[in-house]
Parts: sequence; C-alpha cells; structure tokens
Amino acid sequence: MNKIEHIGIAVNSLETSNLLFEKLLGIPPYKSEEVASEGVKTSFFLSGSNKIELLEATSPDSPIAKFLEKKGEGIHHIAFDVTDITAEIARLKAEGFTVLNETPKKGADNKLVAFLHPKGTNGVLVELCQEITISEL
Amino acid sequence: MNKIEHIGIAVNSLETSNLLFEKLLGIPPYKSEEVASEGVKTSFFLSGSNKIELLEATSPDSPIAKFLEKKGEGIHHIAFDVTDITAEIARLKAEGFTVLNETPKKGADNKLVAFLHPKGTNGVLVELCQEITISEL
Repeated sequence: MNKIEHIGIAVNSLETSNLLFEKLLGIPPYKSEEVASEGVKTSFFLSGSNKIELLEATSPDSPIAKFLEKKGEGIHHIAFDVTDITAEIARLKAEGFTVLNETPKKGADNKLVAFLHPKGTNGVLVELCQEITISEL
Repeated sequence: MNKIEHIGIAVNSLETSNLLFEKLLGIPPYKSEEVASEGVKTSFFLSGSNKIELLEATSPDSPIAKFLEKKGEGIHHIAFDVTDITAEIARLKAEGFTVLNETPKKGADNKLVAFLHPKGTNGVLVELCQEITISEL
C-alpha cells in the first residue's frame, strides 16, 4: 500500500457534479473516461498527490447504480496504489481479508484493479490499483 | 484546497479497527487522541502524504455515534488541508456551499476545522482543516 491513489464518489450526474467539484476544489476535472465493462462514466480531479474520481452509472446493472439506489450519492471507495497487485492480493488474503477479484481486472485510468469486501474492512470498499506499464499490455 | 489531509472512518471499536487497519496498511497507527468536545477517540495512520483517521464515539450524543447508528461503520468524511480556513470558508459560502461552522473550531491533530453540509456536496461530508501555528494559540 504505497499511498491513497484516489477516492471514488458516486454521483447521479457527472455534468452537475463536475461543476460542483470544480467550485469546491477550485480546479476543473482533468479527464473523463467511460469504463463500459463496469457500466460507469468517470471524471478525475487532481488534489495534491491524490485524485478524486466521480462515478456516474451508465447502466442499471452497474455497481454504482446499485450503490446510488441503496445509499444515495456519497463516497464509494478508497483506492490504494500498490506496486505489485498480485503480491498484495496474496498478502491481504493471508491476513484474512476477502478479495473480490482474485485476478485483477482493467479499471479506469490505465490501472489493474481489485477490490476487498467491505464487510472485512469496517464497511470501507477498498480498491487496490497498480499502474499498467508497457510490459503488462 | 491544498490537498486531501485525511480520510475519516467511523468505527465501532478503535481497539479492533486499529489491528485491522494495521493489517491492511502494513503499518501501526502513529498516534491516538481523544477530542472530548466532539465525543470521539481517534487514531491516525500515515498513508503516503495523507492520513487515515479512525473515529470511535465516546458518548451517545457524538456525531460519530449518530452516524454509526444510522449508517454503520464506514467512511465518514474527507478533510482538505487549507492555508487560510477563514478565507476558504468565505470563498465556499460565496460559491453557494453551506458551511456548518462559520467560526472554525479546534479539532484533532492540532487543527482548526470547519465542515460543509453534505447536502451541498453530493452526500460527502467535507472538512476543511488548517494546521494551528504558534501565532494562533
């Protein structure tokens, strides 16, 4: 766990929330990206050495749509940057955490990602993410 | 808004969750602190240039006790480091945000703090915090 890479926030409308977070942080989002496999559109803001990721659902089956339906808008996950996601998954499993993706999957922002079950982490959805380098493409 | 200073996580038991986050992050908490005025005990972990603050309620009237009762354990707030909290409160009010503490109050970890109402920030409880320097004591 090198550092907090980003904080993910579930929103009803990226269009509305991009403006709101631009007012809050004093800077516009630096990029937007759709992750079709996850049923989300995202936008990213820089905040110091971290990012804030806003997530809007593009399909009613998307995990974000289900989160919004159950809990409403709010913080969805914390993502930690890791150097070797496979080794970190093994370490956390050995520590007793429940890893939802034994094999990391492709996430937004050029990352390999895996999630831990929030029941084992005080209700916090934890994402591990590793930057994809050329050798992994 | 200079950077994310810390992420606050509401927990039922600091004793249990200190061990859990030590396993998750691979490091122990570097300090604990009670903030009697807020009815909380806290512990802090370093993660890169950020901190993770665990919060346990010490009184049933504490905002953390109410949060736990309503939502259960989980992420409670994001705190942003600011250089001049009074100026930032004025800026955010002018942008239409609802500031819950017009006058900053003393928080944990040697900080002046103020909160924004989550209804105006996509359900995210946002804390502003400014390090207290000798001239402000």
